[in-house]
Parts: sequence; C-alpha cells; structure tokens
Amino acid sequence: MDVSWVEVDPASDFPLNNLPWGVFSPAAAPASGGAPRIGVALGDWVVDVAALAAGLPGALPDVAVAALGAPTLNPLMALGQPAWRATRAALQALLRSRDAAGDKPVNDALHDNAALRDAVLHRRSDVTMHLPATIGDYTDFYSSRAHATNVGTMFRGPDNALMPNWLHLPVGYHGRASSVVVSGTPVRRPVGQVAPAGEGDGGPSLQPCRLLDFELEAAVFVGGPGNPLGEPIAIDDASDALFGVVLMNDWSARDVQKWEYVPLGPFTAKSFATTISPWVVSLDALAPFRVTAPPQDDPSPLPYLVPAGGRTVLDVSLSVGIRGESMAAPATVTESNMRHLYWTFEQQVAHHTVTGCNLRPGDLLATGTISGEGQRARGSLLELSWKGTKEVDLGGGVTRKFLRDGDEVFMGGYCQGDGYRVGFGDCRGVVTPARKV
Amino acid sequence: MDVSWVEVDPASDFPLNNLPWGVFSPAAAPASGGAPRIGVALGDWVVDVAALAAGLPGALPDVAVAALGAPTLNPLMALGQPAWRATRAALQALLRSRDAAGDKPVNDALHDNAALRDAVLHRRSDVTMHLPATIGDYTDFYSSRAHATNVGTMFRGPDNALMPNWLHLPVGYHGRASSVVVSGTPVRRPVGQVAPAGEGDGGPSLQPCRLLDFELEAAVFVGGPGNPLGEPIAIDDASDALFGVVLMNDWSARDVQKWEYVPLGPFTAKSFATTISPWVVSLDALAPFRVTAPPQDDPSPLPYLVPAGGRTVLDVSLSVGIRGESMAAPATVTESNMRHLYWTFEQQVAHHTVTGCNLRPGDLLATGTISGEGQRARGSLLELSWKGTKEVDLGGGVTRKFLRDGDEVFMGGYCQGDGYRVGFGDCRGVVTPARKV
Repeated sequence: MDVSWVEVDPASDFPLNNLPWGVFSPAAAPASGGAPRIGVALGDWVVDVAALAAGLPGALPDVAVAALGAPTLNPLMALGQPAWRATRAALQALLRSRDAAGDKPVNDALHDNAALRDAVLHRRSDVTMHLPATIGDYTDFYSSRAHATNVGTMFRGPDNALMPNWLHLPVGYHGRASSVVVSGTPVRRPVGQVAPAGEGDGGPSLQPCRLLDFELEAAVFVGGPGNPLGEPIAIDDASDALFGVVLMNDWSARDVQKWEYVPLGPFTAKSFATTISPWVVSLDALAPFRVTAPPQDDPSPLPYLVPAGGRTVLDVSLSVGIRGESMAAPATVTESNMRHLYWTFEQQVAHHTVTGCNLRPGDLLATGTISGEGQRARGSLLELSWKGTKEVDLGGGVTRKFLRDGDEVFMGGYCQGDGYRVGFGDCRGVVTPARKV
Repeated sequence: MDVSWVEVDPASDFPLNNLPWGVFSPAAAPASGGAPRIGVALGDWVVDVAALAAGLPGALPDVAVAALGAPTLNPLMALGQPAWRATRAALQALLRSRDAAGDKPVNDALHDNAALRDAVLHRRSDVTMHLPATIGDYTDFYSSRAHATNVGTMFRGPDNALMPNWLHLPVGYHGRASSVVVSGTPVRRPVGQVAPAGEGDGGPSLQPCRLLDFELEAAVFVGGPGNPLGEPIAIDDASDALFGVVLMNDWSARDVQKWEYVPLGPFTAKSFATTISPWVVSLDALAPFRVTAPPQDDPSPLPYLVPAGGRTVLDVSLSVGIRGESMAAPATVTESNMRHLYWTFEQQVAHHTVTGCNLRPGDLLATGTISGEGQRARGSLLELSWKGTKEVDLGGGVTRKFLRDGDEVFMGGYCQGDGYRVGFGDCRGVVTPARKV
C-alpha cells in the first residue's frame, strides 16, 4: 500500500495506488470559468493536474505537460505507455507521504506549498465530472462465455447456445459513440418500434420500451498513437494500446432489440444511452490484480489470438444495485467479476485490427455483459429474470423483471489489495419516464 | 442551367448549379504550407472559399465566415440550412456570368479582380482532396429492396428473402468511422478469419480475403445543430438535418463477413476501408431531381415514418466500373439509380433517432447497397456473380466473380438536367495485395 499525505479512507476506491485519470470542472473556478480540465482522484479529493503542472514547472514530465492542459484525455492517451507511466510516477511522488515512503521517491514541492495545495485540491463532492475523452469509435464485444451461453440458451436452447464462431474469435460490433454519457446522466426510457403482438394482421407498434435492461460491462480506452489503416496490432503489442479501464452500463431496450436486430445487429435498442464511470483506471494501477485467464484449449484459437506470455484478465469484483423510488438504498442484484471474461482486452485489440481496421487514441472497447457462473453472477435483468419468467427480489417485497421509471442503477467494481482497494467509483444512472407517443 | 464566367464543360459533374463542398490542399501553397481548407468545385477548378472570404470582406454571409476558415466542413455543417443556402447563393453570384445571368444576382467583385482570381482558383487536377469532415459516427442502412431481396434469396431462399422487420423500418447498423477514407486511397486486401472449409475437424483459418467485393452506396452528411440525446428528430423536420450527399464504396470481405456476422452483424469484414467521394453535393443542388419514392402501402409504415408531404428520393444515375491491371479503361458492370431506395434519407433520420439517439453535424448515414431491378442494376459483385456462381464479363475475355489485386473500382453518379449535369465526381480505389500471413 502506498501512503499519501492526503488522508484516504481504507475503503476508498481511490488510494495513491490507483490515481485514476478524469476530466472535471470545479464547482467554483472564478479564474477559468470552470472549463473542463484533467485531474486525478485521490480519496475524497480531485487533484487539478493542469494547475499543478502550471504551478510547479519541471515537476511533471516535459513530454506530458501540453497534453495535461487539454480539456480531454485524448492528447495524453496518444502519448503512449512510457509517458503515462512517468507522469503517474511523478504525481505519486508529489502526493506521497515522506514518513511512510520507505525507499519510494518523494517530492515535497506540493506538500510544502499551502497556497498551491489549496488551488490544486478540490473536494470530489464539489466537482462536475465530464466524459474523459472524445470517443472516436465505440466497439462492444460479447466476451463473457456465461453471458453468451445464457442468452443463447434462452433464445436457441442449450444445444445451440453458442454460435459456431464464438469460441474462435471475440465476437463484437460497432456501437454508437455519440450516446455514451458520463455517470449520473439521467436515462430517458426510450420509445421504439417493437414486433407485432401476435400472429394476426396487426403490425409492429411504436411504444415506450417495456423491457428496459442494464448490462454490466467494463471498457478500455485505447491509447498510444494508433495503428495505420491496413496494419494490424499484433497480439504481443496489444497491451501498449490500452490506456485504462472504466465501468459501463450498456442500457438495452430488449423488446426493440428483438425486433430490429436481424440481420445486422443491435441499432436503436442500444443507441439511446451508454453510461461510463468518469475515472479511467490505468493498467499500471490494475497490474497487481492480473490473474490467469480462463483456459482456451477446446478449441485453441488461431495463433494471431495467442500471446507469447499467456493470457491474463483482471480480478475486479463487480456489483450491480437497483434502487427503486420507494427504497432507501440500492439492493444488490448481481455480483460478478472481470476475471470471468473468456476473451481478453489484448485479444480484442488483435482481432479488431486483424483485417486492418485502425484504432485511434480515445476509442472505447467494451467487454460485453460480464456474467459469471451461478444465478447471482448474471450481469443483466434479461438473465436474472430469465427472459422475464421470474421476479428478481430487491427486498421489502419489491421485485423487478425489468427496470421501472425512477429506478436508479448502480455499478461498482474494485480490486482488493492488502489494506487498500483499487476501485472504479460511480457508474450510475436513473431511469426517467418516456416521452409521450 | 446557370452559367459561370469560369468555363465549364457541359459534361462536367460540377457546373455552377452544383457547387459541391469539399476540403482540399493546393499542390503548391507556399504561404500556408498547403494546410487543408474549404473549397467548392466548379468545372475543372476548385474555388478556395477561405481565401475568397478573406479577400472580399462582406461578400459572403457574416454568419458563415468563421466556419469557412476551418480545416473541415463540420462547423459549416453545424450552421444549418439558412446559412448553407445564403453562402451558396453568395458564391453563385460571385461566379455567375453577367452576360447570361438574366435576373439572377451577380457580384463582379471576384471576376474583376485578377490577382484574387489567381489566388482563389486552383486547377482541380493539381489539388489533394481530404475527407470533407470529421465523422463522429458512421451508420450504414440497408434500404434498397432489390438488394435486400437478392441477398436474402441467395442465403434463405425466395420465400424468406426479406426479414419480417424489413418493410416496417429502415434496417441499419453502426459502422466504423475511423476507416472511412477519401476517393483514391488504395485499399489493401484484408487478411481475416474465415469459416472452416468443411464439416471435418478443421477449424477456421486466417487468410487473405478471397471474396473481396464492392458495394455501391450513397451517404448523407448530417447538418444542423444535431438533436439532444433523448429527443428524436420528427420525420417532417428531418430534411433540415441533411447537409449533402456523397458516393460510397463499402468494401466488403464476404468470406470474413459470413463467418463473423452472427449474431451481432458485420464487424472486421467491413471496417478495413470505406471509400467516399470528396465533394459533398448539397440537397439544394439536388432538389430539382427529387422524384416520388417507391410506394409503401403493403404494408404502410408506422406514422413516425410517414412525412406529411409525401416521400421523395433522388433521380441520380449510378454506375460502377472495374479496371483490371490488363485493361486500358474500366468496364461498366453496374447501372443503378438512387431512386430505387425504398427508405428515404428522411425516414432514416427519423428512425435513427426514434429511441433518442443523438445525431451530430458530420455524422454520415449511408444507404446500403443500391440495387435496382434487373441483373445489370445489381450494386455488388455478390449479386452480379450470384454468390460466385457465374462470371461477370469485363470484355476482352476478362471476367470476375470477386475483385483481384490491381483492380480499380470506379463509382460515378449524376443527375441529368437540361444541358448540364449535377454529378458527384470520383469515388474510386485500387485493390493492393494482402500482407503476408
């Protein structure tokens, strides 16, 4: 555990070991008008990195200073792994407690400058968070075997649950970038076209979604310069293209999806909102929590999907809670873990680019719904209610099959270290009523 | 016909009636370093609109001047219909011949200023064209009934050719924005994962695409301020969201597509390159060529897809030519027309946003392959060769089922006016060999 002179609760998602990147506006910033700027989270605080770079010339790596003054993380993302690592190390040195540092580097310049500390440290409860990056393209994969098996079983039976390609490549599709929103943004229940009710003469209808669902996902922001069109990223280079990870709720209108998705995949059923957590947790912060990935030996994938050093996933405990309007606190409905992913981030990058598709810094690659084995580990209400055939218990007599207006959905995730957590903070959104049809 | 003092061949795609928008770099621009800037095409010339606005203060609408100095069309696209119309009218007045103007407005300021004319007019053969806009999201529809019927017949038989949803909504999916390239960009044959060859124990393989295809499409750039997330664009407001139209070749790896596309749609099979023509033809230039759309009465779509004033499509003759390495000139393989589209641009906008998805200026909405009735009107080699079962004749003993290395694919389109054409210019790309596997 790494100790800061800024007090951090042991249960906080954001100790000095984490130091995730985000873009925020201070609640009151008279000088700058509250324009979005880059920060890192530390306990209950946000460190204004742009102001820090300006206030302490030379304290942060020269290569990163211009990027740290931008209103999005894209320029920083483009710099690549060595610059990210050097900047994080310099920030940790500035924030580290000298008393507990051991042989780790310490830079007292911020600690010893009260005026700068006041200017640079904002209470996290006071700031407004923004999307961390301009997302050029958003891709959604389908990489949890339990999820794909559950959905396939519901719609095609247990013998045909997985499509023939599923074990050979990370199935994915292009998502909608414009409708990715930051945690806390209300989500309006969509109105959409749904299938005819029966076999008679009736046609489809336009109506408020009746089967509104969440999907528990994680997503990685692409970093580095990106690959030129036509030149794939090899599996052993893929980790260099990973800037950091967020949680994602891929809100889904199941009734709309069922009618529209053949043959080209989900479209309006998922493009009304996709919520991400605002703090981007670096792969360096997550590195201690890498574990061996589920085996892929029956069948083994093609060599372009097999890294020389073995496959790892992240041991991140994930949960989903729902708070109905009548409830004082959210009830946990899902407990899952990122380690259940069959396809890794690195495999997703290698496959995404295999035909030559270019990735750019700021692109977002999501895992798809992360379900584990067992009913409690299901990452969507579609699975928890088994296609609406059973009620999901929220306690106190409250149940759900799908989401109701006023429901707030909370996702959380953390890695448990020795006496500390590396966590993801809030990924939440409340369902508001549909527009009048 | 509208006559300019700049000489324009009657067969040119770019008479004064057209004046399409593009982004170009002059071949030699010592002062500015050849940075991308906005222009309009006129005959064999490009008019440097940014230089014109700077050289003739007050000649172009004040509201547009800042946008016209940008390196992409996005700021101009965001201004909306009245600003586009006023700017186009001011440019036409500056370029119109006084002798043939009749009662149309004329502004002699450019015509009478030889130094400015020299600075502003570039030979089109000398300039480098760029993508006209930063494309936030690219969506591809599937709006030609003949195409959907052909493909459905090949894979599911004539009785199930159209999926149950096809006549009720414009089926579409999210495409990849990063791999949209401008006409002339070489297209490398992709290497991708394809299905096992037979029923035995063999798995899939990684190999150069063997069934490389073109798709003849058109695409519209979204303009106006865009809609807020959660607020659809009503069908009767949809035309305000249309900035202009380009041709598109949606290159497709059919063998990769067939294996990967279930259940979430095309992914790596189409994200290796998508070519568009560089000149964006305004809806005002195309307005005289609007014709009644194919009827939609069996079934009628839901009211949110039915405009008050009736549905129109554009009468644009389309063609595709292929030139193999041994050929002196391209052989025409397809003659189709944009009027064959069953779903209109306006219907696509209304459906795309119905669940609340936000469109932004610079988003690109493509039609899907535009096939007409009859074998000659098929917009892809998949259809022309009927899934590879027959040869497509290129003349001189040369035939194709799918594309070979060295083949250059040319797409063209024009509206025929009385003594003039409103055309789209080049949309072409040559196939280069695959990387070594």
